Amino acid sequence: MEQERIWTAALVVIGDEILSGRTQDKNIAQLASWLNVQGIRLAEVRVVPDRTAAIVEAVNTLRTRNDYLFTTGGIGPTHDDITVDAIAEALGVEVEHHPEAMAVLEGYYATRGGLTETRARMARVPAGAGLIPNRVSGAPGIHIGNIFIMAGVPHITAGMLDALTGTLEGGRPVVSGTIGCWVAESEVADLLRDAEKGHEGVSIGSYPFFRDGRTGANFVVRSADEALVTQCLADLTRELQAGGREVIAGGI
Amino acid sequence: MEQERIWTAALVVIGDEILSGRTQDKNIAQLASWLNVQGIRLAEVRVVPDRTAAIVEAVNTLRTRNDYLFTTGGIGPTHDDITVDAIAEALGVEVEHHPEAMAVLEGYYATRGGLTETRARMARVPAGAGLIPNRVSGAPGIHIGNIFIMAGVPHITAGMLDALTGTLEGGRPVVSGTIGCWVAESEVADLLRDAEKGHEGVSIGSYPFFRDGRTGANFVVRSADEALVTQCLADLTRELQAGGREVIAGGI
Repeated sequence: MEQERIWTAALVVIGDEILSGRTQDKNIAQLASWLNVQGIRLAEVRVVPDRTAAIVEAVNTLRTRNDYLFTTGGIGPTHDDITVDAIAEALGVEVEHHPEAMAVLEGYYATRGGLTETRARMARVPAGAGLIPNRVSGAPGIHIGNIFIMAGVPHITAGMLDALTGTLEGGRPVVSGTIGCWVAESEVADLLRDAEKGHEGVSIGSYPFFRDGRTGANFVVRSADEALVTQCLADLTRELQAGGREVIAGGI
Repeated sequence: MEQERIWTAALVVIGDEILSGRTQDKNIAQLASWLNVQGIRLAEVRVVPDRTAAIVEAVNTLRTRNDYLFTTGGIGPTHDDITVDAIAEALGVEVEHHPEAMAVLEGYYATRGGLTETRARMARVPAGAGLIPNRVSGAPGIHIGNIFIMAGVPHITAGMLDALTGTLEGGRPVVSGTIGCWVAESEVADLLRDAEKGHEGVSIGSYPFFRDGRTGANFVVRSADEALVTQCLADLTRELQAGGREVIAGGI
């Protein structure tokens, strides 16, 4: 089979609140699931503090070795919101007020006390950037080059991803299928390794669990080739059953 | 005041299941909270795939610029568990079976079908490593130099952290206090910035929320100096109230 182009993305989560343990991050899983549907793989994630140098380093490393780079967090109006300035610095461009973002904020704040200078901070973008619509609250997200700058609050991020759906070029989505089995993974490690080797293009992950007083594991088969996933799941199920293992459930 | 030594840690989360969106990571928040109590700050996190080169790069970058490095995931018995080999490669050491880990696994599997060659894979460690007790299941965690290699399953990780409690040198724990306020953060951005500047050694984070149909924000004050946090919270509360703002709740 011809080597398929794989599209990758990275995520930089910007936020002291994640690193302090105060807030449980939800954007990694949310972005990963959304990217899968776009046919793009989340290749790496970094969580960095609200510090310019840390953001610049992460953004410059990851934007050059991935097709897309997403960031979450730090685009509000307060002193700890430094994402836009840091990314402008990473790109070596100025920061400017985006006229369309100003118009959006003027509309949003018309009935909310007016657009103050502080609120207008949320219209600041790296020079040359476009906007990502925000269907949930006022301030828009930002895209510049292959970088997508999004909110940190998960349901606002979700709205921004929704606005981006279908606009990014990707490959075939990765399909994954799962087989559960009442077995200690250590008893079938060779079988799993052979199954992965025997179906070129799939990766198989093994995730043990313990429930109802019994040991089991989920085997997750992933590939961009859905037929291959189906075939691998069927072969794996047959081999597990031939070895006397109790398969719980299978399917894509 | 004398400059205080700040102890930092980094975390490498190893796992395709996190990057695929299949599993919501819980170890970042769990480790962050635990580190706070030890007086160590979580300075950065990377999530990398089950690929040796990615693990080696992250481990070697982060172990040298932090006091401690933790990893989660990839220490089971199956083909996708490559953490030990990758870290040995990062350190330039061999992999060997740890005799004490072999004994632990022999005991654990005595009533569970015996210690097979596959299961003995979980006794493999980078040469020179020690063990981290696992109070939940069989296979122990591993420490070598300033690196702590832990399980990916959160409740097993929790047990390993519990075993490490009080064994790592740290500084004063960071204390954080929160004030909630019924205000749009954009209305008090200057006040927050001034409060941070006026209390050297604190950082103030602003986290907006929307509930009961109203806009509010939590202001989180952090410092290793508890008296300073208390003072800053009191000052901030007074200033918010002086500006006619409704403070919801405050406290450390």
